[in-house]
Amino acid sequence: MPNDLPHADLTTLQPGQLLARGVCRHLRALDFVCVEELVPTRGLRVDVMALGPKGEVWIIECKSSRADFQSDHKWQGYLEWSDRFFWAVDSDFPTELLPEGTGLILADAYDGEIVRMGPETKLAAARRKVMVQKFARHAAMRLQALRDPTHHLRSGLLT
Amino acid sequence: MPNDLPHADLTTLQPGQLLARGVCRHLRALDFVCVEELVPTRGLRVDVMALGPKGEVWIIECKSSRADFQSDHKWQGYLEWSDRFFWAVDSDFPTELLPEGTGLILADAYDGEIVRMGPETKLAAARRKVMVQKFARHAAMRLQALRDPTHHLRSGLLT
Repeated sequence: MPNDLPHADLTTLQPGQLLARGVCRHLRALDFVCVEELVPTRGLRVDVMALGPKGEVWIIECKSSRADFQSDHKWQGYLEWSDRFFWAVDSDFPTELLPEGTGLILADAYDGEIVRMGPETKLAAARRKVMVQKFARHAAMRLQALRDPTHHLRSGLLT
Repeated sequence: MPNDLPHADLTTLQPGQLLARGVCRHLRALDFVCVEELVPTRGLRVDVMALGPKGEVWIIECKSSRADFQSDHKWQGYLEWSDRFFWAVDSDFPTELLPEGTGLILADAYDGEIVRMGPETKLAAARRKVMVQKFARHAAMRLQALRDPTHHLRSGLLT
């Protein structure tokens, strides 16, 4: 479920959203900016897309439990939409389950740490352009919805 | 002054920010997304940058009064950073003051209307790429600051 409200009350966030919060905090410290729940193409919705200072595109999938990970049959579809792919899990997660050749971020609601860099498979220029533009539009729409909520409620753009 | 708070109380906004609000609402209906107070290059800060569905870059300067317009000695510097340039003013503004060859949006805090399209001078691909990326990073940083304010207060990223 989309959740773009300010995080005044962490109890309103799902476990995966708490991980995403810590991931975004950590990546911000690396000069990456993040959005959540971006749709790169029909049928895919990434937990976190991060955009680096040089236009790097990273995708991070947040898994709160073994069951959450094992029910994800789409993750390989994300690889072609990013330069690097990472899992984000908490310190209780059995990381041996995670496939080789993927990045790993350990996180909680407050911070995160890259413990294994995702291998780089550089996006083609045309696809990077599409992704940066999708990111820009996604971020600006969510920002406007937060800053001017009555307009968006009225026009139904968030329904 | 930056003002990224939700617009719960319009009395907290400056006259130019009220115009920007209506401009962004109108452009959203045209499938453009907007950010405010983006810095394309050192020494320039645009009131509104809008990004269209095909990557169009528009810049809109909001002028609340004759004096506000006449004290702007930088506007020609914005032309090279956008495909189209517009003024946004309210219905009391003496529009005959505005230079030829610029677009015009009539606006108030609630909506706006393009009454004269700004002439198109297409950005070179490399500059468009820079601008879309600046837009993306600006929007995402402001969004994260609103959603996770304690983090940003702590780290001082907004100071």
